[in-house]
Amino acid sequence: MSRSRISRVVVTPVAFGDPPLLNVVGVHQPYALRAIVEVHTDSGLLGLGETYADEAHLGRLDAVAAALPGHDPYDLNGLRRLVTEVLGRETGGASASFGGMLDVSSAVDTVHSPFEVACLDLQGREAGVPVSDLLGGAVRERVPFSGYLFYKWAGHPGHADDAWGEALTPDQVVDQARRMVDGWGFGSLKLKGGVLPPDEECAAIEALRDAFPDLPLRLDPNGAWTVDTSVKVADRLAGVVEYLEDPTPGIEGMAAVSARTDVPLATNMCVIAMEHLPPAIAQGAVQVVLSDHHLWGGLRKSALLGGITEVWGMGLSMHSNSHLGVSLAAMVHLAAATPNLTYACDTHYPWKTEDVIAPDVLSFESGSVAVPTASGLGVELDRDALGALHEQYLGCGVRRREDTAYMRSIRPDFSPHTSRW
Amino acid sequence: MSRSRISRVVVTPVAFGDPPLLNVVGVHQPYALRAIVEVHTDSGLLGLGETYADEAHLGRLDAVAAALPGHDPYDLNGLRRLVTEVLGRETGGASASFGGMLDVSSAVDTVHSPFEVACLDLQGREAGVPVSDLLGGAVRERVPFSGYLFYKWAGHPGHADDAWGEALTPDQVVDQARRMVDGWGFGSLKLKGGVLPPDEECAAIEALRDAFPDLPLRLDPNGAWTVDTSVKVADRLAGVVEYLEDPTPGIEGMAAVSARTDVPLATNMCVIAMEHLPPAIAQGAVQVVLSDHHLWGGLRKSALLGGITEVWGMGLSMHSNSHLGVSLAAMVHLAAATPNLTYACDTHYPWKTEDVIAPDVLSFESGSVAVPTASGLGVELDRDALGALHEQYLGCGVRRREDTAYMRSIRPDFSPHTSRW
Ligand SMILES: [Mg+2]
Ligand SMILES: [Mg+2]
Repeated sequence: MSRSRISRVVVTPVAFGDPPLLNVVGVHQPYALRAIVEVHTDSGLLGLGETYADEAHLGRLDAVAAALPGHDPYDLNGLRRLVTEVLGRETGGASASFGGMLDVSSAVDTVHSPFEVACLDLQGREAGVPVSDLLGGAVRERVPFSGYLFYKWAGHPGHADDAWGEALTPDQVVDQARRMVDGWGFGSLKLKGGVLPPDEECAAIEALRDAFPDLPLRLDPNGAWTVDTSVKVADRLAGVVEYLEDPTPGIEGMAAVSARTDVPLATNMCVIAMEHLPPAIAQGAVQVVLSDHHLWGGLRKSALLGGITEVWGMGLSMHSNSHLGVSLAAMVHLAAATPNLTYACDTHYPWKTEDVIAPDVLSFESGSVAVPTASGLGVELDRDALGALHEQYLGCGVRRREDTAYMRSIRPDFSPHTSRW
Repeated sequence: MSRSRISRVVVTPVAFGDPPLLNVVGVHQPYALRAIVEVHTDSGLLGLGETYADEAHLGRLDAVAAALPGHDPYDLNGLRRLVTEVLGRETGGASASFGGMLDVSSAVDTVHSPFEVACLDLQGREAGVPVSDLLGGAVRERVPFSGYLFYKWAGHPGHADDAWGEALTPDQVVDQARRMVDGWGFGSLKLKGGVLPPDEECAAIEALRDAFPDLPLRLDPNGAWTVDTSVKVADRLAGVVEYLEDPTPGIEGMAAVSARTDVPLATNMCVIAMEHLPPAIAQGAVQVVLSDHHLWGGLRKSALLGGITEVWGMGLSMHSNSHLGVSLAAMVHLAAATPNLTYACDTHYPWKTEDVIAPDVLSFESGSVAVPTASGLGVELDRDALGALHEQYLGCGVRRREDTAYMRSIRPDFSPHTSRW
């Protein structure tokens, strides 16, 4: 059998409308950015990937895209080597930053990820099997997600209120949750915190507990609290939350909290790369790691993270940024093939109204998404939608995620709440 | 595309002649046993695996073989679940023992391994790609092996001397090494120790150093020494050996040695399953882990081990028992696709004269084997040879590996040298 080779790679930045969701570093801008990666082969197949689209990241993606033609889609070790070489040459192997909350010491993992996903999509399409099969086979037919609740304004300043309306009080958070549960069927709920003083966020969690007695709950203040405050919140919410996510910044801080509470601590902030696992494990900093294939270098490295958490008896959950359907498909295949991913995954998916994929493949029922059984990722691009969201990118003026800068354009005295309370 | 399913599974025990190689627990019997696993699909493909063939193990293999028809070769997570269920039902999920030096707390990994390899062989054949591609792609075209030196008698008692002759002195060990290097081109050498007092084994290593100034050397006494003796040997051989393998038994013992020497310690005895990694890493017990897909549950779990050693900055090498060509092919594909497997792998291959695979695919040049580029493992059964070695199994009387019992049949007062010196 003659081996197919990569013939052409296209990276398309897109923008889609995003509500004013509040977090520890500010507020979501009116548009969220993503890059859609198309990897074409000389056998006529197309593999898809999706990633961040901050300008510096796009530059790195383009540099790798230019070097990929001729590469074998099965040679993933070679892909990583190529990405490492290209980034070293083109950008000095620099670190990368995504919107103030996510900084990585090397850009290799984040740049490698969408190309790796696209190559696995190609492998699946070539072999006639879904990507979940390339990762060891689906252990579940549906992947459960948690409803992702946000404090938010009624609408972006200067624009009409959005369909979700304001959520700044416990009652409003419960209303938002009810809409999430009624509309998508979520069986667990996560509140993005770090926005209001801890007492108010605890009150919101307690209101959710009263309104949804049977649903697992999570609170994620993205490091807004000191160690002492984190312990106090843990004491207050013990038995109420299934885990507390990043109450305080850093491995040392999390370890200090962990030593003083039995509430499981989760993270997608202090353990975001393989190099963080040895110190975090040695210090007993966290009990649950949130994987994210965009950040951890693709589906296979995320599977390695899954294996490591299993070996060390840690819990495994999944993180999400604002994303479109290509990412959702990859997340579903990965989650389906990861036996110890037993927590419902995070997703921002309900917060958006636009997409780049043909509809009806990925739909939420009872808070979960059925694992596609078609070849590869199982999703196809909607060319018209992709073009429209690319036009929107060109016209919207947003070129990188800047939650803090956008917040300051509205509230000039704002500063991030990290370790504030 | 309609998915192919497993239609028939055949497990064939075989025996092949084995020289009287000495080790810490005794001496190799006149025949080594292996089981060849054939997994056939309803699409007419055949996948191969190879594993141990002790009687209890054969019973477990047969139980799984009977349950496999109808299974999807891509569903490796399901295969593991099936093996776990079958072993729980058929054998109570018992531990397993292979010849006195290898005891595992659960038989699941060892039973799972050959079926997983056969399923990957099938996936590769179906997709038209070598198994190395299913593991992320070969990072090297040839896999280097080390020449595996043994103290040995001239022949099995009551039989004619074998072609290798006696090796009990430093000079004889050097002669054996020269034959290995001349015949196979090995670029590194490993001496199986634990047979003679440590001074004599050190003298043999020093004679090898004199005779082969440029070749990396290893010494593996399989836990024959106390902690103090291990430190003394390490001091004597510092700068001479690239690593010292299992000088003393157990994670605690190895940690005690490691604390007192800079010579890297390697193991295939105290870290032989995922559950041993957290305590070994926490205690700094070893610097190099020897993987072995037969023992660790297959190629994908061995890749996980590779990833873990990379994350924790440990070295990775590869262990071997007496084996045939199906195992060698699997070892080569795994090693080729494991970027951080930078030590030459162990192999007993030169010690045998018989095989079950068609010749000429796997040959040693400059001590290394070219990674097969054909689909799957890239090896085919020689049906006549398989039949002959099965007949030999039926007639030879050996039903399990019993190095100690065989030694005692010759030297009744023998007892294993574990921690003896
Ligand atoms: Mg988080
Ligand atoms: Mg050994």
